[in-house]
Amino acid sequence: MTKMVVTPWEVSGKIDYDRLIKEFGTQKIDNKLLRRIESHAGELHFMLTRRLFFSHRDVDWLLDKYDKGEKFYLYTGRGPSGHTHIGHLVPWIFTKWLQDKFNADLYFQMTDDEKFVFNPELSLEETNKMSYENALDVIALGFDPEKTFIFSDIDYAKTLYREALKVSKKLTFSTAKAVFGFENSSNVGQIFFTSVQSVPAFLPSVKAGKNIPCLIPYAIDQDAHFRVCRDILPKLGFYKPAAIHTRFLPGLKGPESKMSASIKDSVIFTTDSAKDAKKKIMSAFSGGAASLEEHRKKGGDPDVDVACQYLYFMFEEDDEKVKEIFEGYRSGSITSGDVKKMLVDKVTRFLENHQKKRERAKKKLDKFILTD
Amino acid sequence: MTKMVVTPWEVSGKIDYDRLIKEFGTQKIDNKLLRRIESHAGELHFMLTRRLFFSHRDVDWLLDKYDKGEKFYLYTGRGPSGHTHIGHLVPWIFTKWLQDKFNADLYFQMTDDEKFVFNPELSLEETNKMSYENALDVIALGFDPEKTFIFSDIDYAKTLYREALKVSKKLTFSTAKAVFGFENSSNVGQIFFTSVQSVPAFLPSVKAGKNIPCLIPYAIDQDAHFRVCRDILPKLGFYKPAAIHTRFLPGLKGPESKMSASIKDSVIFTTDSAKDAKKKIMSAFSGGAASLEEHRKKGGDPDVDVACQYLYFMFEEDDEKVKEIFEGYRSGSITSGDVKKMLVDKVTRFLENHQKKRERAKKKLDKFILTD
Repeated sequence: MTKMVVTPWEVSGKIDYDRLIKEFGTQKIDNKLLRRIESHAGELHFMLTRRLFFSHRDVDWLLDKYDKGEKFYLYTGRGPSGHTHIGHLVPWIFTKWLQDKFNADLYFQMTDDEKFVFNPELSLEETNKMSYENALDVIALGFDPEKTFIFSDIDYAKTLYREALKVSKKLTFSTAKAVFGFENSSNVGQIFFTSVQSVPAFLPSVKAGKNIPCLIPYAIDQDAHFRVCRDILPKLGFYKPAAIHTRFLPGLKGPESKMSASIKDSVIFTTDSAKDAKKKIMSAFSGGAASLEEHRKKGGDPDVDVACQYLYFMFEEDDEKVKEIFEGYRSGSITSGDVKKMLVDKVTRFLENHQKKRERAKKKLDKFILTD
Repeated sequence: MTKMVVTPWEVSGKIDYDRLIKEFGTQKIDNKLLRRIESHAGELHFMLTRRLFFSHRDVDWLLDKYDKGEKFYLYTGRGPSGHTHIGHLVPWIFTKWLQDKFNADLYFQMTDDEKFVFNPELSLEETNKMSYENALDVIALGFDPEKTFIFSDIDYAKTLYREALKVSKKLTFSTAKAVFGFENSSNVGQIFFTSVQSVPAFLPSVKAGKNIPCLIPYAIDQDAHFRVCRDILPKLGFYKPAAIHTRFLPGLKGPESKMSASIKDSVIFTTDSAKDAKKKIMSAFSGGAASLEEHRKKGGDPDVDVACQYLYFMFEEDDEKVKEIFEGYRSGSITSGDVKKMLVDKVTRFLENHQKKRERAKKKLDKFILTD
């Protein structure tokens, strides 16, 4: 088993989510909190009941504020290093549900500056262009154009840089080094960047001239940024943002890796053809026994089978069906081939639908993009 | 004698300009270069013949380019931590002469971001506001509105941040630390800042889509920024900027300090009343003997007498008169009181004239300010 590494720039090894809660100092999402969310939303998203969203910070505080009439806004984002893949959609789909249920504004940050300074291979023109490609996927998910503000760090810099300076003045190199592991060879753009990632956590409060609570849904690997952010914001007179954390959708190559565009065929891009997606799924890591005969006899492990996991994370919303599939897979009555075929069907339909919406999003881009 | 310190954030001790040339690795301005400048300009500014501008980098290269038809532009700036004082005007007056003689564009940077992250006492609103106060002094000097572009780092951030990212990606923490002396307690805004100060040294080349030579006149304490800048720009495909360096006008308290707004009565602000300026000059450090009788007998040292130095640096353009005054002061026929009175006359007229122009500049600000 490889060592677990979870930083904003690397996720590898077998992920122990309970350990992350301890190490990062977050709270486990418990039934009490779920009931509280349900009482406001009228229902619970399957990503909550299945504990894909497993951890949080201050969501109870956020709901206290909400109960007192202080509405919150949402903030999430994307590092546009390439095309969107399906793993990226998990927190976005949940964020849309939160927007719908709580009638919340959403600030969506495209960190094209980050991807440029951290990736030696990428030009600024490439990451900036990818911000708008990725924005199409956000829009295709159906966010409310009246309440959703997508911006590229590069193109919204006039607004962001001014506020980032305030954060940067409160962040010493030694803290940044301790949290992010910077070295002497780190470039000064990398060292500054987290200041920019903090800005959307208080920018609406600056604009409104009063504190507005903020909730940030994100994959747990981004936590370092928000530990720094939560430390600094009160020093600037703002609320600490609340947070809700998701697990990683495993890569197609197996459960011990996050999807990563840098590993060939480890991910399904939202822009993949149905044919390519099918090919990738059919050759994905399987949790079945060594042979079909053995699988029929002994069954397989749906918790490591990639197709089972994809159905669980995203593509099979019906809890009963998931139960059926997982039990069948465990008993051997459902084979790896069967679940792969189920997933291919679901993914084919999803991609067809998403790509149509993504195409239509091109005409709607202006309604969503925030610039200076 | 106090130790010599010359960094972008501190100047103290007795300044040994020959040692700075060696330590910073610049070239002394020699007679050959002066003749070359004269052949283009038709004359030499007294700040050149008096060697107030004493050092340079690549000005010969710049003139080679100029001879081949490649015009250069000028870049200089100001850290707007407070009102402009007279010492700030020295490089600006010379820059205006260069603009006139070489018909050159000027990019004038107000580093309100820098002053905010380096000064614990200053708010961003204060430094930003001071950018526009200081701009009035620049405009009052008579720069050509068609060829002069003044910008605040904060308000021009959309353009600057994008380019600064490219610089920041090429600058490691260890280099920044070695050049600027950063420590673990330095904030990440300070560490990033030099990336922004580099941008005007190539921005017009980006805009033109081709390399344009750049000449930066500045007081030698800013050299660290441009050593880094000259190291990185070729890696981004741009020319190294040429530079020409001025000495510091001494503070009113004596020759061992630069003017500094933080030392009470050590500076004359361009916004001072004639009365206040007179009071400051009359109590300035004097290079005369202990008593008037002794001065009449033994004479004084015009090289340390503040009033003599101010006449030399700025207020007496006539070389013959300077010679007369200095010789009289050395012999004792001219007293400290005499030179102070001469200076009060000159400064009173200057302030009266400058403040009128400064007032008129308020209406012209729009013509000079570059924003996104």
